[in-house]
Amino acid sequence: KPIKDRQRLPVVPQGIERDDFLAALAELKVQIGNENVEINDKPLKDGWYMEHPNTHDMMTILDEEELVASAVVYPSSTEEVQDIVKWANKHRVPIFPISMGRNLGYGGAAPRVRGSVTVDLGKRMNKILDINPEDYTCLVEPGVSFYALYDAIQEKGYHHLWIDTPDLGGGSVIGNTVDRGVGYTPYGDHWACHSGLEVVLPTGEVIRTGMGALPGNNTWQSFPYGFGPYSDGIFSQSNYGIVTKMGMTLMPNPGGYESFMYTFPNEEDLAPLMEIIRPLRISMILENVAQLRHVTQSVAARGLPRSQFYSGTGPIPPDVIHAAAASAPVGDHTWAYYGMAYGPAHIRAHKLALVDAEFRKIAGARKVDPATLPADEYYFSRDRVAAGVPDIHELRWVNWAPNGAHIAFSPVSPIRGTDATRLFALGKRLHDAYGIDFFPAFCVGLREMHLIVEIVFDRDDAERKQAALDCLRDMIDEAAAMGYGEYRTHLVLMDQVAATYSWNDNALMKFNEKLKDALDPNGILAPGRCGIWPKRYRGRGWEM
Amino acid sequence: KPIKDRQRLPVVPQGIERDDFLAALAELKVQIGNENVEINDKPLKDGWYMEHPNTHDMMTILDEEELVASAVVYPSSTEEVQDIVKWANKHRVPIFPISMGRNLGYGGAAPRVRGSVTVDLGKRMNKILDINPEDYTCLVEPGVSFYALYDAIQEKGYHHLWIDTPDLGGGSVIGNTVDRGVGYTPYGDHWACHSGLEVVLPTGEVIRTGMGALPGNNTWQSFPYGFGPYSDGIFSQSNYGIVTKMGMTLMPNPGGYESFMYTFPNEEDLAPLMEIIRPLRISMILENVAQLRHVTQSVAARGLPRSQFYSGTGPIPPDVIHAAAASAPVGDHTWAYYGMAYGPAHIRAHKLALVDAEFRKIAGARKVDPATLPADEYYFSRDRVAAGVPDIHELRWVNWAPNGAHIAFSPVSPIRGTDATRLFALGKRLHDAYGIDFFPAFCVGLREMHLIVEIVFDRDDAERKQAALDCLRDMIDEAAAMGYGEYRTHLVLMDQVAATYSWNDNALMKFNEKLKDALDPNGILAPGRCGIWPKRYRGRGWEM
Ligand SMILES: Cc1cc2nc3c(=O)[nH]c(=O)nc-3n(C[C@H](O)[C@H](O)[C@H](O)COP(=O)(O)OP(=O)(O)OC[C@H]3O[C@@H](n4cnc5c(N)ncnc54)[C@H](O)[C@@H]3O)c2cc1C
Ligand SMILES: Cc1cc2nc3c(=O)[nH]c(=O)nc-3n(C[C@H](O)[C@H](O)[C@H](O)COP(=O)(O)OP(=O)(O)OC[C@H]3O[C@@H](n4cnc5c(N)ncnc54)[C@H](O)[C@@H]3O)c2cc1C
Repeated sequence: KPIKDRQRLPVVPQGIERDDFLAALAELKVQIGNENVEINDKPLKDGWYMEHPNTHDMMTILDEEELVASAVVYPSSTEEVQDIVKWANKHRVPIFPISMGRNLGYGGAAPRVRGSVTVDLGKRMNKILDINPEDYTCLVEPGVSFYALYDAIQEKGYHHLWIDTPDLGGGSVIGNTVDRGVGYTPYGDHWACHSGLEVVLPTGEVIRTGMGALPGNNTWQSFPYGFGPYSDGIFSQSNYGIVTKMGMTLMPNPGGYESFMYTFPNEEDLAPLMEIIRPLRISMILENVAQLRHVTQSVAARGLPRSQFYSGTGPIPPDVIHAAAASAPVGDHTWAYYGMAYGPAHIRAHKLALVDAEFRKIAGARKVDPATLPADEYYFSRDRVAAGVPDIHELRWVNWAPNGAHIAFSPVSPIRGTDATRLFALGKRLHDAYGIDFFPAFCVGLREMHLIVEIVFDRDDAERKQAALDCLRDMIDEAAAMGYGEYRTHLVLMDQVAATYSWNDNALMKFNEKLKDALDPNGILAPGRCGIWPKRYRGRGWEM
Repeated sequence: KPIKDRQRLPVVPQGIERDDFLAALAELKVQIGNENVEINDKPLKDGWYMEHPNTHDMMTILDEEELVASAVVYPSSTEEVQDIVKWANKHRVPIFPISMGRNLGYGGAAPRVRGSVTVDLGKRMNKILDINPEDYTCLVEPGVSFYALYDAIQEKGYHHLWIDTPDLGGGSVIGNTVDRGVGYTPYGDHWACHSGLEVVLPTGEVIRTGMGALPGNNTWQSFPYGFGPYSDGIFSQSNYGIVTKMGMTLMPNPGGYESFMYTFPNEEDLAPLMEIIRPLRISMILENVAQLRHVTQSVAARGLPRSQFYSGTGPIPPDVIHAAAASAPVGDHTWAYYGMAYGPAHIRAHKLALVDAEFRKIAGARKVDPATLPADEYYFSRDRVAAGVPDIHELRWVNWAPNGAHIAFSPVSPIRGTDATRLFALGKRLHDAYGIDFFPAFCVGLREMHLIVEIVFDRDDAERKQAALDCLRDMIDEAAAMGYGEYRTHLVLMDQVAATYSWNDNALMKFNEKLKDALDPNGILAPGRCGIWPKRYRGRGWEM
């Protein structure tokens, strides 16, 4: 990939003189060590998932130099994070914390404000501070990935403890959880499963939430609330603090588990299927955040480029997709449901029988026999993930486009046929209009579902990038007009998404801004993240 | 009960002239109606549970005139709550919101600051705004009690929907939930089960949290988080806002249920029993917040006065209690575990068999056959409550003392033998020292338990009241020194409990105060609640 011409590096944050900035960095080097302050003045490298950059979004939807860090700093302790925060206040430098920076689809490692100093917490603060085999909890630092946590538990031989992992295991437990990510066991709602935070505030103080505020306690990871206001929530999807430690509950080994997969032939099966899924899900007969996936993404999940199937432009025609699906081990279908039953055999049998009877009410429903599938079939990745085993198979569909990158549209809806159909139709129409292949996957939570639509694009094709972004922006606006909002979004879309949560003349955003100004009077911490701009930035055209 | 001499009524809030205060109230009468502003200038009446006062704590541990309202106001809408808040800001009058004011054991209807204007939300804002039989959710106003919600669901014939109720069904869903109360089905963690708030801020603006901020949404009650900072938590156990609407999820009828009760003979059985309970609870074999109760409270739960069993002073001797227990239908024991298994018969059988095998490892464990118990036995109250059927049997043990009142000590600990034993010993020693009967009940959450110790006292006996308060204060301090903190506390003890959460030089309280000052610059909303004093009050000796 050619390295583009660049402006003089590093990109200094707006409003600060280059020399002052470099002098400030020199000061910080004295504080936390020369080698722990890295100026971003070399060519940007995208790397790949396992060796991803921390200076920008490796899957950028804009020009990659737009949202780029001026420098990256590596604290080794909570105290050093405090030092960095105080330094940022002194010099009015915007800083942007990441745990591991693998927030792909939502901005990767990029900061929201160009030229921010990225605080890469994960590199040196990567200890598992505790695994408690009696309480089924752990306490981790920002650099602990799902892989690392899983491995540590196996090493200790704690087979009674399970973790919950998102589709990709390389992200950090903290980064994923504070962005309110999801996984696929019954402990899939990571935010709901955490217990206790240590947070460095934007003015440099450090607090512990919940029972962590009680000296000598032994319940920080067991009881999330503590006494008084339960403030953890305001540190998720926000820019109010830097999380330096987090407690996480661990799932008890359920004593057995069994993946299952059903396929359904027609697009129109979506609505009746959702009506079947909802009551089964709410009553925990369907126990995990299952995915209901569209065949186009299933074909893409093989990891082959789209060009192997089709050489035309515009969305790949349905007959091509169905032919490709028909020739694969799973066979032709439109929807595939991946679920798992947990518990001993007779308990699983009870649930599986109920599911089977219900799912078969859809004409043409087919239960896929795993014995017929080859070992590298996507099914087995879902099987691992639903059993809390970290994986990266999911990355394969990113190969669909050359120089593949992706960005996500993630609206929330009830688990209902009408809602699923409306969102599907909206996405389909706009993908068609922009000539984009449509990858809808419904991730079914307890009473709601996130529809995750991943747009895969060639990051070196400016026109396709623009089409992806335009399509996303249209989907967000049209969905909001129908009452659907995103659960999470990409850095570039945060202003737009935040603006859809506008009830009562944007009362919630005004409230968020009031908190921001109280907690971060100099506006140094992740300005603009989740659409929240500090006073110094407001009304100056930073939104995009 | 004799009516005491009183100072000139109403008790005007400190710092305001009587005439100014009365003029301000007259102004408010014009705004929300004469009949909706009630000056508290009549003798205080304690009433009883179903007809409780809203002017003070009917079970006060201080003199009942200490924490007393100057007036009570009755808004009929969110707009009127906003009017009241703006009025309070204009006149710098402390206001104190209650939903129903049945927070017995934790302060009842009393305000923290003497002379506050109580905002009784429940009287006129008592609508069930929605019951959604598909999503298993509801949306309620502050005056909706657990009884009212239950009845409305039955009336609609929605037998597939269960509610979760605390021991007493007369409290409000909102009041109980914002104080982070607990119930006894698998949906017992009320805070975790709510979804969506409407909140009037201390400066008069109104926000909706979660998906509620998205106009036209249909997910406010299904997906709690929305987009951006998840702020609900800071409106629980706090004084940052007045909750005017709340969404609550409803449990699916599990398709069958079955209470069970085991007794254990010795005090020392506590530790091994906890070791047995913990893994069963975390893995949801024990599915609900069960109670493990001490025999003294079981005897008291019959509703007879202590004088029927014993006429001496000091703690009732063990042999008297055991003799009383032996003559009752359940028979003698020291600990009683009340649990429930949910689901169809064969699923329950699986869980009950596991529980039985484990519990019987304690020598002398006995499963009580419900068929041997009379209909008004306490067991059946627990049975109803664990099935989400509101009840008030639990009130009976308050009759233990003449003019019975009670106050709770509620520390959190891991579910562990060592912790249970330490807390039991601490409580026992201090109860003995103060000559108080000891009622410990362990309410076992998922990974932690609340030990709820209810001290029953004669509210007309100043000496016994003082002993109860002294005992509580000692328990709080000693427990904190051992690392245990309260999950919730009485108004009178909030400063003390908040001060135990002191990690890093009271960093959490300083943070709470920062939020308070940002959100409530005039300090009008529930000053002092949960130990959080607004700037105007700090350093002026308001703590107690
Ligand atoms: C193919 C594919 C599949 C995916 N599937 C899933 C999935 O199933 N579920 C899912 O949830 N995600 C999914 N993702 C998105 C993403 O990969 C994961 O969420 C990942 O775990 C996040 O990466 P991270 O931990 O490195 O987060 P980071 O990038 O470190 O953090 C994410 C953001 O949170 C904030 N943040 C991070 N750490 C802190 C901190 N300590 N204090 C304050 N703020 C902080 C920062 O703003 C940061 O930008 C997927 C991505 C891809 C490419
Ligand atoms: C015998 C006995 C058994 C009990 N068992 C239990 C139990 O099992 N579980 C349990 O949780 N509790 C229990 N309690 C305590 C109490 O009865 C319940 O918690 C009850 O539901 C609370 O009453 P309420 O809804 O009237 O709350 P309120 O008194 O209305 O509210 C409680 C507090 O919350 C705040 N508040 C209330 N409404 C709002 C609002 N709209 N906005 C902002 N702040 C607000 C106020 O500060 C108020 O003082 C028990 C009490 C007794 C006497």
